Amino acid sequence: MPAPSAKSATGPAEARPPASPPPPLHPLLIDDVVRAALQEDLGRAGDITSAALFPPDQTAQASLTIREAGTLAGLDVVSTVFRLLDPAVTIARHLADGTTVAANTPAATLMGPARSLLTGERVALNFFGRMSGIATLTAAYVAKLEGLPTRIACTRKTTPGLRLFEKYAVRAGGGRNHRFGLDDAVMIKDNHIAVAGSIAEALARVRAEVGHTVTLEVEADTLEQASEAADQGADVILLDNMDLETLRAAVSRIAGRAITEASGGVSLETVRAIAETGVDVISVGALTHSARVLD
Amino acid sequence: MPAPSAKSATGPAEARPPASPPPPLHPLLIDDVVRAALQEDLGRAGDITSAALFPPDQTAQASLTIREAGTLAGLDVVSTVFRLLDPAVTIARHLADGTTVAANTPAATLMGPARSLLTGERVALNFFGRMSGIATLTAAYVAKLEGLPTRIACTRKTTPGLRLFEKYAVRAGGGRNHRFGLDDAVMIKDNHIAVAGSIAEALARVRAEVGHTVTLEVEADTLEQASEAADQGADVILLDNMDLETLRAAVSRIAGRAITEASGGVSLETVRAIAETGVDVISVGALTHSARVLD
Amino acid sequence: MPAPSAKSATGPAEARPPASPPPPLHPLLIDDVVRAALQEDLGRAGDITSAALFPPDQTAQASLTIREAGTLAGLDVVSTVFRLLDPAVTIARHLADGTTVAANTPAATLMGPARSLLTGERVALNFFGRMSGIATLTAAYVAKLEGLPTRIACTRKTTPGLRLFEKYAVRAGGGRNHRFGLDDAVMIKDNHIAVAGSIAEALARVRAEVGHTVTLEVEADTLEQASEAADQGADVILLDNMDLETLRAAVSRIAGRAITEASGGVSLETVRAIAETGVDVISVGALTHSARVLD
Amino acid sequence: MPAPSAKSATGPAEARPPASPPPPLHPLLIDDVVRAALQEDLGRAGDITSAALFPPDQTAQASLTIREAGTLAGLDVVSTVFRLLDPAVTIARHLADGTTVAANTPAATLMGPARSLLTGERVALNFFGRMSGIATLTAAYVAKLEGLPTRIACTRKTTPGLRLFEKYAVRAGGGRNHRFGLDDAVMIKDNHIAVAGSIAEALARVRAEVGHTVTLEVEADTLEQASEAADQGADVILLDNMDLETLRAAVSRIAGRAITEASGGVSLETVRAIAETGVDVISVGALTHSARVLD
Amino acid sequence: MPAPSAKSATGPAEARPPASPPPPLHPLLIDDVVRAALQEDLGRAGDITSAALFPPDQTAQASLTIREAGTLAGLDVVSTVFRLLDPAVTIARHLADGTTVAANTPAATLMGPARSLLTGERVALNFFGRMSGIATLTAAYVAKLEGLPTRIACTRKTTPGLRLFEKYAVRAGGGRNHRFGLDDAVMIKDNHIAVAGSIAEALARVRAEVGHTVTLEVEADTLEQASEAADQGADVILLDNMDLETLRAAVSRIAGRAITEASGGVSLETVRAIAETGVDVISVGALTHSARVLD
Amino acid sequence: MPAPSAKSATGPAEARPPASPPPPLHPLLIDDVVRAALQEDLGRAGDITSAALFPPDQTAQASLTIREAGTLAGLDVVSTVFRLLDPAVTIARHLADGTTVAANTPAATLMGPARSLLTGERVALNFFGRMSGIATLTAAYVAKLEGLPTRIACTRKTTPGLRLFEKYAVRAGGGRNHRFGLDDAVMIKDNHIAVAGSIAEALARVRAEVGHTVTLEVEADTLEQASEAADQGADVILLDNMDLETLRAAVSRIAGRAITEASGGVSLETVRAIAETGVDVISVGALTHSARVLD
Repeated sequence: MPAPSAKSATGPAEARPPASPPPPLHPLLIDDVVRAALQEDLGRAGDITSAALFPPDQTAQASLTIREAGTLAGLDVVSTVFRLLDPAVTIARHLADGTTVAANTPAATLMGPARSLLTGERVALNFFGRMSGIATLTAAYVAKLEGLPTRIACTRKTTPGLRLFEKYAVRAGGGRNHRFGLDDAVMIKDNHIAVAGSIAEALARVRAEVGHTVTLEVEADTLEQASEAADQGADVILLDNMDLETLRAAVSRIAGRAITEASGGVSLETVRAIAETGVDVISVGALTHSARVLD
Repeated sequence: MPAPSAKSATGPAEARPPASPPPPLHPLLIDDVVRAALQEDLGRAGDITSAALFPPDQTAQASLTIREAGTLAGLDVVSTVFRLLDPAVTIARHLADGTTVAANTPAATLMGPARSLLTGERVALNFFGRMSGIATLTAAYVAKLEGLPTRIACTRKTTPGLRLFEKYAVRAGGGRNHRFGLDDAVMIKDNHIAVAGSIAEALARVRAEVGHTVTLEVEADTLEQASEAADQGADVILLDNMDLETLRAAVSRIAGRAITEASGGVSLETVRAIAETGVDVISVGALTHSARVLD
Repeated sequence: MPAPSAKSATGPAEARPPASPPPPLHPLLIDDVVRAALQEDLGRAGDITSAALFPPDQTAQASLTIREAGTLAGLDVVSTVFRLLDPAVTIARHLADGTTVAANTPAATLMGPARSLLTGERVALNFFGRMSGIATLTAAYVAKLEGLPTRIACTRKTTPGLRLFEKYAVRAGGGRNHRFGLDDAVMIKDNHIAVAGSIAEALARVRAEVGHTVTLEVEADTLEQASEAADQGADVILLDNMDLETLRAAVSRIAGRAITEASGGVSLETVRAIAETGVDVISVGALTHSARVLD
Repeated sequence: MPAPSAKSATGPAEARPPASPPPPLHPLLIDDVVRAALQEDLGRAGDITSAALFPPDQTAQASLTIREAGTLAGLDVVSTVFRLLDPAVTIARHLADGTTVAANTPAATLMGPARSLLTGERVALNFFGRMSGIATLTAAYVAKLEGLPTRIACTRKTTPGLRLFEKYAVRAGGGRNHRFGLDDAVMIKDNHIAVAGSIAEALARVRAEVGHTVTLEVEADTLEQASEAADQGADVILLDNMDLETLRAAVSRIAGRAITEASGGVSLETVRAIAETGVDVISVGALTHSARVLD
Repeated sequence: MPAPSAKSATGPAEARPPASPPPPLHPLLIDDVVRAALQEDLGRAGDITSAALFPPDQTAQASLTIREAGTLAGLDVVSTVFRLLDPAVTIARHLADGTTVAANTPAATLMGPARSLLTGERVALNFFGRMSGIATLTAAYVAKLEGLPTRIACTRKTTPGLRLFEKYAVRAGGGRNHRFGLDDAVMIKDNHIAVAGSIAEALARVRAEVGHTVTLEVEADTLEQASEAADQGADVILLDNMDLETLRAAVSRIAGRAITEASGGVSLETVRAIAETGVDVISVGALTHSARVLD
Repeated sequence: MPAPSAKSATGPAEARPPASPPPPLHPLLIDDVVRAALQEDLGRAGDITSAALFPPDQTAQASLTIREAGTLAGLDVVSTVFRLLDPAVTIARHLADGTTVAANTPAATLMGPARSLLTGERVALNFFGRMSGIATLTAAYVAKLEGLPTRIACTRKTTPGLRLFEKYAVRAGGGRNHRFGLDDAVMIKDNHIAVAGSIAEALARVRAEVGHTVTLEVEADTLEQASEAADQGADVILLDNMDLETLRAAVSRIAGRAITEASGGVSLETVRAIAETGVDVISVGALTHSARVLD
């Protein structure tokens, strides 16, 4: 009878790969942030402990391992940390971002000068732990919706300076991204509507300014607003803080004329019930602002 | 007889001010990070919704309020956000950083162009919520040690790019800062000791390199290491992952010759018992890497 | 006998104001580019001629005047040039961006230190002439479509580093903006379709990646592609290089299911006929890459 | 009878190489601008279309071709675009900057990841088309002066941020560069003379300030000013907006004591007649501010 | 017998003002360098001592005083330091840059928050002492040439990053500036001549490349080279390391056809004799690379 | 039979290597400064002389040689200059930083494109000469203390922007570094004590703010202050401007309870006598602010 388990020591024993890992972030988009993070930790004089204690030619090997079960995100960023710190460090990846692993599964092996491995360790883990924490929480939300077409999306409640990294982590966890900033989609909220006088007038004013490739989203707090937004041709309608019954009614009134998005009061406990109202998207600020850093 | 309490509507009804609020962060230290955060949200075209809907001369007023009970941190950063975004916005602060407040206590009132208030809102809250979350968690740890001389300190497990902001928030919560990076104190860990051969040799090599104003900290995993570190004149000894009994023994052996610092296995449940072993400092990575963002 | 011209000396005699001037560009979006342009001209030693010849306290006045008839764009940028160069320079604007003027109409009057006025003159004019040239060409295209609902849009064929300024100038001329970059809308072109196998497959793959606020545009070179793109739910269909008859047929087949955009072979001579096919938008690369700089 | 044309597919069939191509621009001088141009197009999330549709390992080949006859400029910049975007892209150049080619002559062949080729295409063409347009217009002016010693020079009427690129393109077209900014030569204009009182006094004041390696140029609007400038030892005399007869007289009066430079009213129609007055240099703002972008 | 000196405490008793103070350096040229110097000293956490000890509202007054006799340079930079650090600091200047003062003469009085005065003190003095040291040494050289037309010039042997500041200090001391970098004048040295084959050929090649506003300087090590350079129309001839007799002969051979510049072996002892050979300019690397920092 | 002297031609004949060369500065800490220095010299157009005269494929070899006896510092920086300028330049080092050499000893040989060698020469020497000058002066001070345990340390009187380079040079010369800025150690000076009321109070306030890894240094101008500082637990006591007798008494009173540091009135003549008072450290501002640049 053959051995029931021939896992290699470094292999991803129980790893579940992602449906499709998100495309990598381009160095031109992330290098400046990673460099700044390294310089923040190096300060003026650099890693004075390792410089004094490690001979420059001593090499070492280290394993990048998550101590808890979770979904990986940030392997590219770890690579970037060491590429910017010391190109002599090489990284062998065993798993891809988006893979869900058991506790203590090694994700990659790093080899190179001992000095550099120690110097970059903390920054690399600060990125990797945070991003994997977000991916893990996202994956938990996504798992709750199994079998339903509703998608989970993040918001702009991200860490200042790290939005791109966190949006990527959400995708690694199987979630979707909402707009990246104030400029790539219109979001008409209650105070915008108040100043314009009506949803119709707000949409008209916005259409007079923005280009034809900009998506128009309108926040609706009531069924009436949801209807008006759909009547006026909003592309997306944000159904904010509605109870399940109202949500269901709103979806029914909008009737496919716009993408429906629910937000407010979303937790791992409530998310499936919200999805079952038929909304297309549920946006969850907690994905990025309340994820725990993985260890 | 006059009413004993004539708190103004916006006043800090149940606010408990800090013993001493931390000195403010200098603009030369934080402006670049805040500007980058604003540019991250503005993208290329800026807040296209507010630009289309608000007339430039419409003014508004907003209240900066934490919806949960907690300890405030980041009011200077909120001011910086709006100073960089639009100097026409003025901010009246009702409370200082470090103040512990009940839920829904307004911390400041912002007045100015409606466009700018809306444009800066999310970035301001992303900073403020994160920093207040850290201050709140720190204050919870500090409260557990009431009456004891032991201090709570943070670590380098901070958000990449935001270390200064997070270290400040720890101080606002009554905690202390550990080193700011790899360059402002020596930290000799197990692998450093291994490569040097002994704590004595590691300290000797480091002393041959670094200046006389640099503090030397040594990580000790055993009582023997703690003793050796003290014998060799370490300034600070990190007692890592020791149980309470070992901690007590280590403090006793070190006998005031070095500052003692405990780390590992610290939680709100365990922190008082650890402090009662007599250690001078307890360092808690969770302060910065696991704090919840306040709403 | 007609009135003997009672135009005020500085007044906008024959100026035609814009329907609505575009919202101003935020300093956080343009200051870095304007500062770099000033530094490019100042070099290392600054304006050595004016520094040697003008006493620091000599003031002067200058008029910002376009020597040709045209549409103004860039007054904010001129203000930014002098705000960054010397806050002592004040600018009185007589006209708003988007105003169409006769030749030699003064747009603004600048007052301040003579040194600074001369030092900043060339950079200010380099921005203003280029932006007004784009606004003027855009206005010429827009004028050709009078009475038709079709809109004129620019493309990504902009000057490296100045896209935001040029997109603004297009709006000042009455045009609309297409996407600002590679990230704020999807544009599926022929080689994307080729690698995916079909428009349907390309859209499916893209939908699996991008968020629900991202507009999906598909380039169609044939009627069949236009139909398929509409069937598959594209938000915008780019009808590229089609003759008028094919355009008309494409608009008919798409039948309002997507925004239609024509491109290719557009000139001031052909643009009205193209619009009369019923397309919603005509995109014109020439707006930004072939506009003449106004003098 | 042999085929009259055995052009290789990629060969520079009718290309006329430059007398001497300009020395390349150093990466330290241009990389920052090119990187900013790429980041302007990539935005926050990068090329979301190509990332979703092209597998990372798919390679492609592209030809850099000018669709119109003209003079090439910017091949180094195209290389820089792809070096910064993706070092895996290789470029085989068939022609050098400064070469005058027929329409549809391929200038270089690019090979590498399909994703990167598509992502960088627009930025590369935005640089290359603009620079080649300037080189082409310059070459047209230079051609008009065949057989004459007079040289064509550009001015400071350049695109903000791109002066170095445009000055290079002028050289590629056979033209010469005027000063690069306000600091590398003195240019005494009419208002400088007015404030100083006379050309003599203005030159004296300037000589008291600037170093001995700085060239002193004086603008002369009349014959008298031209004579005075020469008498006072100006290095270069700008003969501004003079008719041909006055130009001839000015050249005669200056009599080789200074370099003569004509400006104003220069067009392809007038340039040869101006040159025939004997001026050494003709400066033409149109080279950089009115060149058409090549397709 | 009355006291021979009734100097006011703050007054510039024995101050000798400059013939004409150099025009100030524009903030766009120096702010970035001064900001970086402040950030270098502030590090991550800023002035932790003053922040802990001075209440924010405590004000103070400080006097900027040079303890040794010398020539002042850098008052603008001191102002810039405090403008960037804290706009609440005001500076009353008693003397202008270029003034030669006795020891312990106060140059300016600073008033403002005590914290900021202490925080900025070291950076301000590091600039001011260095710049005044250069001005003082320059003034010593200039004084040696009293009555002679020869001018003293600096070289490119400047502190990396501070060239503009040091060139300014040379002017404050009465000296002149040589070229600012490799790009604003041609300097043909021996190895350039060697590779070209002759001075004539080197000049010809350079003339084929550079614009008509660029000064051409040629280094001559022998009388023959000096003659050839003059014959070939060099604008400036650098007579390098020649003895006095050869210098005299070279000046005689050049006979006013080019500006003559002597370098090599220049000291306060030798400079007057060198000037008496009739050279126009003496360039002295020591001005910037060997000046002592004033206390 | 003695070895027949096999020194290579380029070998370090009389070189005395350092006890231990300082660890190299990380590129992330110095590249930005070196790049800025190169850009300062390249200006806008680069090395126009070498570009015009050297064919791009001409190679050359150059020797990095100090013409005076001294201690080397800055070889890494020279490497960085050429790595950033042209990776085709290779450098063979014959000696390490910290080596004391006789005059005219070649430290390294550079090979590569002649253009690049000439272009980078001045910037490389500006760094290398300055750093070696500091190392040489430091070594002179250190040599005076031979056989004594006292160490020589630098101060914050460094060149703005180059502190890290100069602190490194001090280490190369055998000296030690004092704090790197205002943030990495507390330094309580007389005005701090004045505002706090006493050394005891000042230390108490500081201890309430700063972390446990921050060293506390107190400046003492009198014996009483020295005693009080030691009594209150200062880590380092700066004995400022004391005569030898007072120094001796202070060392005796402090009695090993704190590190003692002397400053003021230190010269090569006085340093040994100061050391013989028993102080641990002598800090010397002259190391960085009065070192002569080596040729």
